[in-house]
Amino acid sequence: MAKTMAKFTVGDYLLLRLEQIGIKHIFGVAGDYNMEFLDYIVNHNGIELIPTCNELNASYAADGYGRINGVAALVTTFGVGELSAINGVAGAYAEHVPVVAITGAPETKIQALGSLVHHTLGTGDFSIFARMYQQVTVAQAYLTNENATTEIDRVLGICLLKKLPVYISIPMDVALAEVSAPSDFFIPPVFESDGATIAEIVDVCVNILEKASQPVILADIGVARYHLHEQLRELLTATGYPYATMNMGKGLLEETHPQFIGIYNGAASQESVRKRIEQADCVLTIGALMTDYNTGKFSAKLDPSQTIEVHGDYVKVKHALYNNVAMADVLSALSQRLQRRNPQMLYFKSATENLDPGFITPIEGGSSAPITQQYFWHRFAHFLQEDDIIVAETGTCLFGASIVPLPKGATFVGQVLWGSIGYSVGSLLGCAIAASQRRSILLVGDGSFQMTGQELSTILRYNLKPIIFLINNDGYTIERDIHGERMPYNDIQPWNYHQLPKVFAGNAWAIKVSTESELDKALETAQQNRDQLAFIEVVMDKMDSPEVLLKMLQQ
Amino acid sequence: MAKTMAKFTVGDYLLLRLEQIGIKHIFGVAGDYNMEFLDYIVNHNGIELIPTCNELNASYAADGYGRINGVAALVTTFGVGELSAINGVAGAYAEHVPVVAITGAPETKIQALGSLVHHTLGTGDFSIFARMYQQVTVAQAYLTNENATTEIDRVLGICLLKKLPVYISIPMDVALAEVSAPSDFFIPPVFESDGATIAEIVDVCVNILEKASQPVILADIGVARYHLHEQLRELLTATGYPYATMNMGKGLLEETHPQFIGIYNGAASQESVRKRIEQADCVLTIGALMTDYNTGKFSAKLDPSQTIEVHGDYVKVKHALYNNVAMADVLSALSQRLQRRNPQMLYFKSATENLDPGFITPIEGGSSAPITQQYFWHRFAHFLQEDDIIVAETGTCLFGASIVPLPKGATFVGQVLWGSIGYSVGSLLGCAIAASQRRSILLVGDGSFQMTGQELSTILRYNLKPIIFLINNDGYTIERDIHGERMPYNDIQPWNYHQLPKVFAGNAWAIKVSTESELDKALETAQQNRDQLAFIEVVMDKMDSPEVLLKMLQQ
Repeated sequence: MAKTMAKFTVGDYLLLRLEQIGIKHIFGVAGDYNMEFLDYIVNHNGIELIPTCNELNASYAADGYGRINGVAALVTTFGVGELSAINGVAGAYAEHVPVVAITGAPETKIQALGSLVHHTLGTGDFSIFARMYQQVTVAQAYLTNENATTEIDRVLGICLLKKLPVYISIPMDVALAEVSAPSDFFIPPVFESDGATIAEIVDVCVNILEKASQPVILADIGVARYHLHEQLRELLTATGYPYATMNMGKGLLEETHPQFIGIYNGAASQESVRKRIEQADCVLTIGALMTDYNTGKFSAKLDPSQTIEVHGDYVKVKHALYNNVAMADVLSALSQRLQRRNPQMLYFKSATENLDPGFITPIEGGSSAPITQQYFWHRFAHFLQEDDIIVAETGTCLFGASIVPLPKGATFVGQVLWGSIGYSVGSLLGCAIAASQRRSILLVGDGSFQMTGQELSTILRYNLKPIIFLINNDGYTIERDIHGERMPYNDIQPWNYHQLPKVFAGNAWAIKVSTESELDKALETAQQNRDQLAFIEVVMDKMDSPEVLLKMLQQ
Repeated sequence: MAKTMAKFTVGDYLLLRLEQIGIKHIFGVAGDYNMEFLDYIVNHNGIELIPTCNELNASYAADGYGRINGVAALVTTFGVGELSAINGVAGAYAEHVPVVAITGAPETKIQALGSLVHHTLGTGDFSIFARMYQQVTVAQAYLTNENATTEIDRVLGICLLKKLPVYISIPMDVALAEVSAPSDFFIPPVFESDGATIAEIVDVCVNILEKASQPVILADIGVARYHLHEQLRELLTATGYPYATMNMGKGLLEETHPQFIGIYNGAASQESVRKRIEQADCVLTIGALMTDYNTGKFSAKLDPSQTIEVHGDYVKVKHALYNNVAMADVLSALSQRLQRRNPQMLYFKSATENLDPGFITPIEGGSSAPITQQYFWHRFAHFLQEDDIIVAETGTCLFGASIVPLPKGATFVGQVLWGSIGYSVGSLLGCAIAASQRRSILLVGDGSFQMTGQELSTILRYNLKPIIFLINNDGYTIERDIHGERMPYNDIQPWNYHQLPKVFAGNAWAIKVSTESELDKALETAQQNRDQLAFIEVVMDKMDSPEVLLKMLQQ
């Protein structure tokens, strides 16, 4: 190690910059073309390498970490490693998570010669995989001794500014090359709103909103990605307007907020929420992404002539587009200018007042009946605590959890748009590493778990103690709802899931529950026993689905 | 199902053509954009769908199946599914395995509208993933109602001709669209050699080879991919020349063949093999790929002025290039023209005569000593039977197995060039499905197994009965040999591997062995007990590596 420690290198520079933007852990897998860089990580004090079982899971972990931490990094080896991770990086792109995807590449000389080395297609072309990454990252850097420091700063800046993944290819000779240590701390580029445009937008919007008798706010994923939770809270306080979130924005603020009316998901919404949004005479959307599973399969009805859309760097008022304005500036300007309304004149019921009774009154002790989706989610709602992180797999888990009211400080993590099943297991690792002081909860189906379940091993390796609910409903239930209810492609091999923690040699408490009372008891144990990971395999009927999911799929 | 069976559709057409080119099984995972096509597979008599735990493993399975069966198919869903599989398809490209990668895509109308549906990046661009597949497939088809039958025939033809993967994107409305059933059986395009060029090549080559006093043949992967094993045998019979294979060509013919001298891997070769190849006055290479791990890290010394290279569609004689000639035609023309030499004048010892004594004499009963790499491979050599399929993971497994003599009819499967660890578990599934009547053997390291181990579940689900040797040496031993011997990134979580078959609910016999005598006993049991899958976890020292691997890495 002496050699690598004696001088300041490109590898050191990259790590210093990553540390400066807030990265404390890097997920990845060792490979022939990244190990010299891994040496730097191991020897860098402020950053820890978290090796995963495979690269796809590392990319999912980076995505989860990025959602909690604000930015994340991933390191893979050339070809085989980076291609295994590319689905996870594409997911981060779709869901607007800033992930720095670093690939260790063969030495510059080997690339220049076009050598037929392993982990290549044997064609001598070393740019193939980078070309693939261009499709799913917002900026790319191919480091050389000369451009390394400039390019690192450039792409990290874009990553933070755009809240999207970037790609860094670092040949191992470049990682070892000496450069000057930076004299300054890294200052990420700031998006500067155009002042005149802001002023005009605010005038126009205030005029519309003050005239509206029933304005409403619809907040979504953009607020989370730009970390504007508190600005949203200020706007709510300043105006008194009711607000809903969409599936991707679930849990922006505590769902017990008195102005929170629920989740708007088009025709799949709770009826009172749907009406309040669709009958509003002005909807102020903030960072809304109108994707299929965010809009009840496109059944959302927002009249453009009564809608103001605030996005990361532009605003649309009715049909007029205003570019070059940052969401943060728009929100704070609106908070300053808008009048506070009397909530009683805004005709809404808070989500808390409107709750399914099962979510309010602690239900009575369960019977020996099988566990239904409804029973599970009612019980789960009472299990949640403040500041929990809930990672929900796409499928019955994500949609079932979508209507469970979240307590204060809770964070909801799921892939509503990308929907790559198996994501949640890797993501849980990333979330739990990013916030080890918080309680992390995983909701995953059996089919999804079979995709990536080995990462439970890494969660145990790092002695993390999440609570894992594995819904064993004998296959791909959401797919059965969509198509092929009785087709064999939606069936899976019936594993003894709860025996896995023992195979992975971890400190865990694991149980399989099939009845209401067994579930109740397991929840109680998991609530109390916080010295171990808890793994609860919950057996449910293969055709039982959350009502909200069925309602959405019927659209 | 009535609707889909009543008319002949694009889905039916694709399956009929796949069946006609020899595909009996398709590997894949259900997803929202492929289930209508999966219905056709389920209802198609001649083809069985083999659902895997995840898409990467499906692509590895297709690769293994393609090597045994000659061609394979894979089906994934749009975005998430196809990206998870892309590493495996890239591997098939690198290693020249014809795999038809089929992706179910959203309906044509959804694509035309640029809808923000799930499994997309939310940008409205539906061509992103197809652009990525262009990098790792030799031809692509984007099916429409109008072009489907022509395009299917075109890309399947290229797949068979080039022995490389192709990509088919099939929107679900297109899968359901009615087309005319083909009146003819599918006739794959044939590469026609240019007769005059063949005649000239043969004159030139015969002249050189007949003048050479010590000619030798070096056969490699190209022979396997073009299925020219028997043409190679004929050439050997016709000439009496000695021959070696390279790592990628291991096991083209039985390694007890009297003219077989061993594996040529540059400076990492057995000394007698190295000398016989490098001191030959003419080396006739057939389908040789000069990659790093095929040439002892580029230490192979073949003088171009004494080399004739026969490739799939061209020949190079010294420095002259001849295009438009098929390997099959060149080999058969050479077999007809070349004179048979007296082997005694060709100065070589067969591999059998030259064997490490441990591979010849059955070693005595083992002691209570720990199992070394050397002990394991000696024992393994005696364990092999005719017609075994041996799937070896890149790492100590592949290189350790590379010098084990293969019996008649045995097939050796490994990724010498692409080297994506975890490949072997999925590949084993594919091989065992392709040749269920043969005995399949897996050699996999613990680190590699952690990448993809869940596919053991599918192997058990289909009641396959391979013999699995999991080398538990506590991490990435080959990486420790390359770099970072004591670095934490080469360490892994120590699973109780042999307990996995029970978790996966399969019919298996599993054991963990740490001493020579335990291994001996386990081998005996596995040899006799053919009613179950056998899973043997073999404990070895973390720094014990096959000698041939260390010799190569020292280059």
